[in-house]
Amino acid sequence: MSILVVGTVAFDSIETPHGSAEHVLGGSASYFAVGASFFSQVRIVGVIGRDFPEEYLQIFSRRGIDIEGLKREDGETFHWRGRYHEDLNVRDTIELHLNVLSSFVPRLPESYRNAEYVFLGNIDPKMQLEVLDQLGHARVVACDTMDHWIQGSADALRKVLGRIEILVINDSEARLLSGEHNVVRAARAILKMGPRAVLIKRGEYGVLQFSDTSVFATPAYPLEEVFDPTGAGDSFAGGFLGQLARTRDVSQRGLRRAIVYGSVVASFTVEDFGLNRLTKLSLPQIEERYQRFLELTDFHT
Amino acid sequence: MSILVVGTVAFDSIETPHGSAEHVLGGSASYFAVGASFFSQVRIVGVIGRDFPEEYLQIFSRRGIDIEGLKREDGETFHWRGRYHEDLNVRDTIELHLNVLSSFVPRLPESYRNAEYVFLGNIDPKMQLEVLDQLGHARVVACDTMDHWIQGSADALRKVLGRIEILVINDSEARLLSGEHNVVRAARAILKMGPRAVLIKRGEYGVLQFSDTSVFATPAYPLEEVFDPTGAGDSFAGGFLGQLARTRDVSQRGLRRAIVYGSVVASFTVEDFGLNRLTKLSLPQIEERYQRFLELTDFHT
Repeated sequence: MSILVVGTVAFDSIETPHGSAEHVLGGSASYFAVGASFFSQVRIVGVIGRDFPEEYLQIFSRRGIDIEGLKREDGETFHWRGRYHEDLNVRDTIELHLNVLSSFVPRLPESYRNAEYVFLGNIDPKMQLEVLDQLGHARVVACDTMDHWIQGSADALRKVLGRIEILVINDSEARLLSGEHNVVRAARAILKMGPRAVLIKRGEYGVLQFSDTSVFATPAYPLEEVFDPTGAGDSFAGGFLGQLARTRDVSQRGLRRAIVYGSVVASFTVEDFGLNRLTKLSLPQIEERYQRFLELTDFHT
Repeated sequence: MSILVVGTVAFDSIETPHGSAEHVLGGSASYFAVGASFFSQVRIVGVIGRDFPEEYLQIFSRRGIDIEGLKREDGETFHWRGRYHEDLNVRDTIELHLNVLSSFVPRLPESYRNAEYVFLGNIDPKMQLEVLDQLGHARVVACDTMDHWIQGSADALRKVLGRIEILVINDSEARLLSGEHNVVRAARAILKMGPRAVLIKRGEYGVLQFSDTSVFATPAYPLEEVFDPTGAGDSFAGGFLGQLARTRDVSQRGLRRAIVYGSVVASFTVEDFGLNRLTKLSLPQIEERYQRFLELTDFHT
């Protein structure tokens, strides 16, 4: 079952206490697509500039990702430069150049329009709406956003929230969006805005899932070494939606297992810079760590 | 099976964004003892001043707690005043008066010495050693400590760590004790200091347990309202050791379930000021929330 993702495809320049990387492949759509590609066919919608190298396109094609919807425009590719603190939960944006992204209007190739599983990655909510308008009857639409859009594009974001099934968001964004400090109250308030489920990402502390009838909490997979947290959230979403598409099981049990698959993918992502770890990963390695995740959290059996 | 606890018995004055409380019953031994009393007989060792009121002793006696080892000395009871930030994970100590605690030498009544389950609450490691010297052959000795002793009484604390089975500690203290920022590495380093298991408390984010052969991670029970986090960690330890003593099951499975029982007790503690919630609690309410905790975290069955 194929998955459609719209989001950013970027050059990331990253500084962490462990080292730095210049102009590596990044962006929400890139991390999502590679993370989901272990489970399902993925189609990507986004924009790149004339400077986008062939070797980065090959990262997608080697993972079997369909890039027909990746549009090349005159200009430079979106570029983000960020610096992580000693506490890797905190980062500063040092540079942000939208470049070709600033005038991007997403157009879905005909073959993309019947996608059943859709992820609206972190991008202008107006672009997310453009994609929603071009979709057929998707089975599950999930969405991410960030403080910039919550504060600057509240109306468009509210329209998006009224048309999706699942919001994937981090805890500080959930607080900002809802105006509630307590994360449980924040999730309840967001459910009233439209989504049937809210997934709250808490980085190294795991994930909470809220729906009207159920709450699920899971820790993150503990790691001895976190090299680079960039893309953890987007690759989490990729593993999550990938597993949903693979199994077509959107029951509460299916959602919970998909959240753990997403957490497993994210735990690999942060073990190296950028997409380095994911490009060397295999599905058996994911399945093995899923088993270890079962053991890690089990007091039920 | 009876449990022995040594620690502080205090007057706490607490300010939170939700309100304040003056001179309520507090201290590590008080929270531990009340938390453990739902599961097992508890014996308390500590010191109080002439100003300690009868009604606070009745809080212990109503829970069936043995206070033969609670010594009344000339002087005033230990008093702590703390203020929580809007983010309840952060608090400042405003006042700290050791009073009768400064010259306390713990003496175990004869009937206490054969205790099988022992908790050395957060108190001077030299006092913890005094207690260890008076014990028979305990089945499980668990211990807590804090930054003050890690920095100021490192030698005595190291001796304690060489003689206990389980260290219960929060994440920032684990970093300080080990000199490792990463919590997994911190736990591995602490295991080399003696304990067979390290329980790392992460407040609203749950608990990690490390031993040589196993890692267990559990989230905390999500609450819509946290009134007062004071005593959460000590009542967690009380529920944990109480459940171990009740079942006498110290297998990995037994330890994991005890950690969840501890988390359940702590989740009640923070719902009201001081010991207010725990003094109204019943074992069936604990068992009911344990069942909800199973559902909250289950993707295994």
